[in-house]
Amino acid sequence: MARQRYLARRSLADARVEMLASAEPITRHEVLAAEEALGRVLARAVSAARNVPHYHGAAMDGIAVRAEDTFGASEGHPLTFELGSPDTVVRPFSWIDTGNNLPLWADSVVMVERVFPGPAAAGSGAAAGTVAARAGDDCCGAAGAAPENAATAGDESGGGAGLVRGPERVLHLRHSQAPWQHVRLVGEDIVQSEPLLPRGHRVRPIDIGALLAAGIDRVDVRARPRVAILPTGDELVQPGNEPRPGRIVEFNSRMIAAFVREWGGDAVRLEPVGDNPEALYSRIVGALRDADVVCVIAGSSAGDHDHSAEALARFGRLIAHGIDIMPGKPAIVAAIEHLPDGPAASSRVALGIPGYPVSAAIVCRELLEPLLAHLLGAARVDRVCVKALVPRKLVSKLGHEEFVRVNVGRVGERLVLSPLGRGAGAITTLTRADGFVRVPPLVEGIDAGEEVAVELLRPIAEIEGTIVASGSHDLTLGVLDDLLRGACPGSRLVTNSVGSLAGLLALGRGEAHVAASHLLDVASGTYNLPDVERLLEGVPVMVVNLVVREQGLLVAAGNPLGIGGVRDLTRAGLRYVNRQSGAGTRVLLDFMLERDGIDPEAIAGHERCELTHMAVAIAVRSGLADAGMGVRSAAAALGLGFVPLEREDYDLVLRADFARSAAGRALLGVVRSAGFAAAVSCLPGYDTRRSGEVKIPCAT
Amino acid sequence: MARQRYLARRSLADARVEMLASAEPITRHEVLAAEEALGRVLARAVSAARNVPHYHGAAMDGIAVRAEDTFGASEGHPLTFELGSPDTVVRPFSWIDTGNNLPLWADSVVMVERVFPGPAAAGSGAAAGTVAARAGDDCCGAAGAAPENAATAGDESGGGAGLVRGPERVLHLRHSQAPWQHVRLVGEDIVQSEPLLPRGHRVRPIDIGALLAAGIDRVDVRARPRVAILPTGDELVQPGNEPRPGRIVEFNSRMIAAFVREWGGDAVRLEPVGDNPEALYSRIVGALRDADVVCVIAGSSAGDHDHSAEALARFGRLIAHGIDIMPGKPAIVAAIEHLPDGPAASSRVALGIPGYPVSAAIVCRELLEPLLAHLLGAARVDRVCVKALVPRKLVSKLGHEEFVRVNVGRVGERLVLSPLGRGAGAITTLTRADGFVRVPPLVEGIDAGEEVAVELLRPIAEIEGTIVASGSHDLTLGVLDDLLRGACPGSRLVTNSVGSLAGLLALGRGEAHVAASHLLDVASGTYNLPDVERLLEGVPVMVVNLVVREQGLLVAAGNPLGIGGVRDLTRAGLRYVNRQSGAGTRVLLDFMLERDGIDPEAIAGHERCELTHMAVAIAVRSGLADAGMGVRSAAAALGLGFVPLEREDYDLVLRADFARSAAGRALLGVVRSAGFAAAVSCLPGYDTRRSGEVKIPCAT
Repeated sequence: MARQRYLARRSLADARVEMLASAEPITRHEVLAAEEALGRVLARAVSAARNVPHYHGAAMDGIAVRAEDTFGASEGHPLTFELGSPDTVVRPFSWIDTGNNLPLWADSVVMVERVFPGPAAAGSGAAAGTVAARAGDDCCGAAGAAPENAATAGDESGGGAGLVRGPERVLHLRHSQAPWQHVRLVGEDIVQSEPLLPRGHRVRPIDIGALLAAGIDRVDVRARPRVAILPTGDELVQPGNEPRPGRIVEFNSRMIAAFVREWGGDAVRLEPVGDNPEALYSRIVGALRDADVVCVIAGSSAGDHDHSAEALARFGRLIAHGIDIMPGKPAIVAAIEHLPDGPAASSRVALGIPGYPVSAAIVCRELLEPLLAHLLGAARVDRVCVKALVPRKLVSKLGHEEFVRVNVGRVGERLVLSPLGRGAGAITTLTRADGFVRVPPLVEGIDAGEEVAVELLRPIAEIEGTIVASGSHDLTLGVLDDLLRGACPGSRLVTNSVGSLAGLLALGRGEAHVAASHLLDVASGTYNLPDVERLLEGVPVMVVNLVVREQGLLVAAGNPLGIGGVRDLTRAGLRYVNRQSGAGTRVLLDFMLERDGIDPEAIAGHERCELTHMAVAIAVRSGLADAGMGVRSAAAALGLGFVPLEREDYDLVLRADFARSAAGRALLGVVRSAGFAAAVSCLPGYDTRRSGEVKIPCAT
Repeated sequence: MARQRYLARRSLADARVEMLASAEPITRHEVLAAEEALGRVLARAVSAARNVPHYHGAAMDGIAVRAEDTFGASEGHPLTFELGSPDTVVRPFSWIDTGNNLPLWADSVVMVERVFPGPAAAGSGAAAGTVAARAGDDCCGAAGAAPENAATAGDESGGGAGLVRGPERVLHLRHSQAPWQHVRLVGEDIVQSEPLLPRGHRVRPIDIGALLAAGIDRVDVRARPRVAILPTGDELVQPGNEPRPGRIVEFNSRMIAAFVREWGGDAVRLEPVGDNPEALYSRIVGALRDADVVCVIAGSSAGDHDHSAEALARFGRLIAHGIDIMPGKPAIVAAIEHLPDGPAASSRVALGIPGYPVSAAIVCRELLEPLLAHLLGAARVDRVCVKALVPRKLVSKLGHEEFVRVNVGRVGERLVLSPLGRGAGAITTLTRADGFVRVPPLVEGIDAGEEVAVELLRPIAEIEGTIVASGSHDLTLGVLDDLLRGACPGSRLVTNSVGSLAGLLALGRGEAHVAASHLLDVASGTYNLPDVERLLEGVPVMVVNLVVREQGLLVAAGNPLGIGGVRDLTRAGLRYVNRQSGAGTRVLLDFMLERDGIDPEAIAGHERCELTHMAVAIAVRSGLADAGMGVRSAAAALGLGFVPLEREDYDLVLRADFARSAAGRALLGVVRSAGFAAAVSCLPGYDTRRSGEVKIPCAT
């Protein structure tokens, strides 16, 4: 057999349309108490079982009267009303509170503010012109704050004069009332038999209120679609086990199950099947017995994936074998047309989901979510989007719709994005991302300065509360972020680790609120201030110390090669791992090499660059390199040896407007807090005695 | 006691800020399996327990080599590699698939496409230049569709030539490889000890993937805030009981409980308490024993509401008693400072929630939701907003932030809104709404032509799939909507019942896709076409018949007054209920009155107008009127008597561009379907034999 090609590579849109056309909506349903139906999808339209209101009720506190009795009343010609009914008095009135039912003989409610004491009360010294005395302890009927009823749109008169149900048996009215004024009529809100909620509607809290109000206590909802999730691959081990090299923890099925739950389905996770085509086929047959959808997850290796396509093709037709999206390309969509014992009874589809977690998540969002909505006959789930500025050209490959993961932060008036890594295997590019930019297949990239839509992966509130830091990486920034979140929930610090120099430049361009920097100025021997002055001329900033930290060489635990300093880096056979130009640590190395007259070319690995201390540490830890420069805390985190070389100022440069903002003040508050010093003291190699020290005050 | 004022009426923003300052975040937490933590909020930051990947693995299918062995290879100078290890051969290679771990001696992966058969294989007739033969049945290692790994950003070459692991023991390379090329390095995604997810983070499906990948099987999450919900009011009855007049079904606590669940809290619904201040106080004391928040729901009468304020004030301070929002004004925010047995141990707040359901829902969204987010230390839930055009001036009262409920539909390029009713008691203004427009307190209204933000109450997909109908109301539009939703999930028909004439005008202004009309042209005796020509000159439209329907007089069941026709409407003491001008039914009445020489002024109630047939029917049903004109189906729905007068054409007028669109074709398909005829045949008074008949073809 030759290497498998994508037999039926499709565009995402085409694959989706054909997938939906090949999947019959669910017909199973269940009856639930209305109050238990939150989030469920109505199987059929619901009509009101009763009128709401079901009686003519007062919309105001006041008195009930017959409108015709009021005709002719005016300021100059008040009419007298007596407590009672038409059987006992000529012009009857009855005290009434909002929500009370109208006496059968009445057809209008006069608000209490427009009621005046009759001759008797007027003579008894009550407050001028209005009924002010209070009747005993009639709690149930106590008039209170004016209620709301915008239907009658009266003034809610919260601050008005006090007026309560009085002891009066005789009252005056000085205006005439229209029939049914201030009355909530039967069926004003809902008329019995009228449609209340449509089929395919996802029940919200307000719907539960409306259903119960309209006398609907039970509803018929669609059964949750059953999604069987079948991981494949000999390399899989279950969570809780320490995987050997070459083994992978099986987490995709758990992630997909959570997606399914979130989208209203029932997830059934199946035991993984090894890389055996016959076993895979029979496991799919088994899964199809109960499931509305079968998702076959490839392991991370390509071989597994083709087993899926081969196995799924045996059930009918591959609608798509490969999709023009990146990540997500190896997805499979298959129509289930026949089972081993004959043609399939209903139209169903199965999905092949790539093993790389980012690909898996994107395929779930782009195919499984619309499939579940379709099976439920409900609307698709909302994707919240924002517009954000592209600060530097975003390159993308032609021929794929690319999902570029980005972070987004509000700097000044604008939301500005910064792209994250693109590896389909790197799930943190997804968990750390604020959202996706979708670059269409026929676009090679997006130019700097353009605004693009970002499909969010976290709440807008969190993004609006983001402090964007750029520049050097340090573990204490993680501490700062954690304490900031604790002190101001909704705030967070997101760091783009681009190195000190690039961070200052990003700050200058308005792409970050804060730059983290430890740039040694060789001439003066000072840190950061000369570079800030040189690079941020005209940009008002504030500079404070975050920590003083120890830099040195990260080496294997116990320093087996006996490395003593930078001079040893030229030793034959020793492999160094460097930091990128513009990183403060690189500046420090270059300074030391020049000071000691060492030729960088003599250091093996000098050209190999990593972007963070932790990346250097991991290179040493995993045996890729014998030494790299970095902070003591990075060495400690991975149990490495450390050869101290220098103590340096690691400073924060804040845009002045940000420093003065509430968020900026909150950040500075955390930097100067005892909690920060305490948390940092748990990490080796830091000194917080100068944390928060102002090196350049906030420019105005 | 004088009538209670709002003692501490506040702006929403102020009330919210002070509420949050008075509520301590939850400190209780629980440990959950990571895969069960969906939607929960992390109590503390989580760091990776292992590197991801945890081994150096191949990022491509191909061969593993030592990079240094490849140096010097070129097209003109291929280098030979042999299957084996450095112990056995000079330049070793080893077959490797994506995800496999690298042999200890290797540091680079050559993708299979760049591997050439060695001299032996080259001589054996394999496909020119590449390894094409296939090794036995080694399923596990079978190379397949090229995997994704955008980190190395290679061409995924799905359509490339077939190349598989061959039987060759000798291969050629014609290029040199960099060290660690096409290798996923240890920690490339996540470095052990690095922060993975922050505290206060709500766990998403992708986070479950990342947690398990990084070796975190259990997480510490915040306990769900406990919200006690206490309904008050003597008038409340439980759902399932038919409420007597003056009684109200207690549904608010169920709606609020659903909100609480949706926002991550634990709702505890308590038995209602009557209108008794002491009982209320002691029930709140009881609720405060366990709950983090107590919500006291006023009944619908104002008196109850003040009991809440009085009772809550006994626990400390009323932060707000009345809020400048509409609906929602009677809300109460109280700080719990002392309990009967001494000062409160922790800072908590209680809310007084108004009894009108719309007010209750808005107060929940504006106060309870941020409170729960604050207690959880998490970001607030997203509100999805769209921009929509205001087609006619939207009036609002000064002094309140008003939440105007609106429907929204896309007509042509624009989203256009139409306001719904404003009654705080009318829950259907909320369930039928697509969203809110928030009109700030100091704005009297929004001018026609402005674009405003609409805070959505349903998925955008549903709104984008909305067909906006305007004009006359008929029960068959409900049938049409239901069948359309069934035929095209995601589609819906929303009707603004403004009367036939106003519907045609709205269509002309581009505010609707469809107008429903039954306008009798007195001169010609025909329906609709003359008015369409007159009012929609220059607007390309299509007119089709929806139904022919019976119009007549709706009267009490059994027609006790023996009404025989319009002439009887002038009878003394008989109360008529009319339709608004511009309604087709009103046009019909006016025509008949003129034809028969009847003075409209002689009809009592001629000036009282309702907007729909059902509103007329309910007026007759509830005894507000003795007769009104309407369709037979409305009479039947409420069990009324019916005096037939006329058969009329009830037509749909479609904008031509809409008629040609997929949505328009779908709508017409339903109108002409057997399902529509069958469903309408269940309603009395309709004839569907002409349904779908084209009266004016689609103009181009």
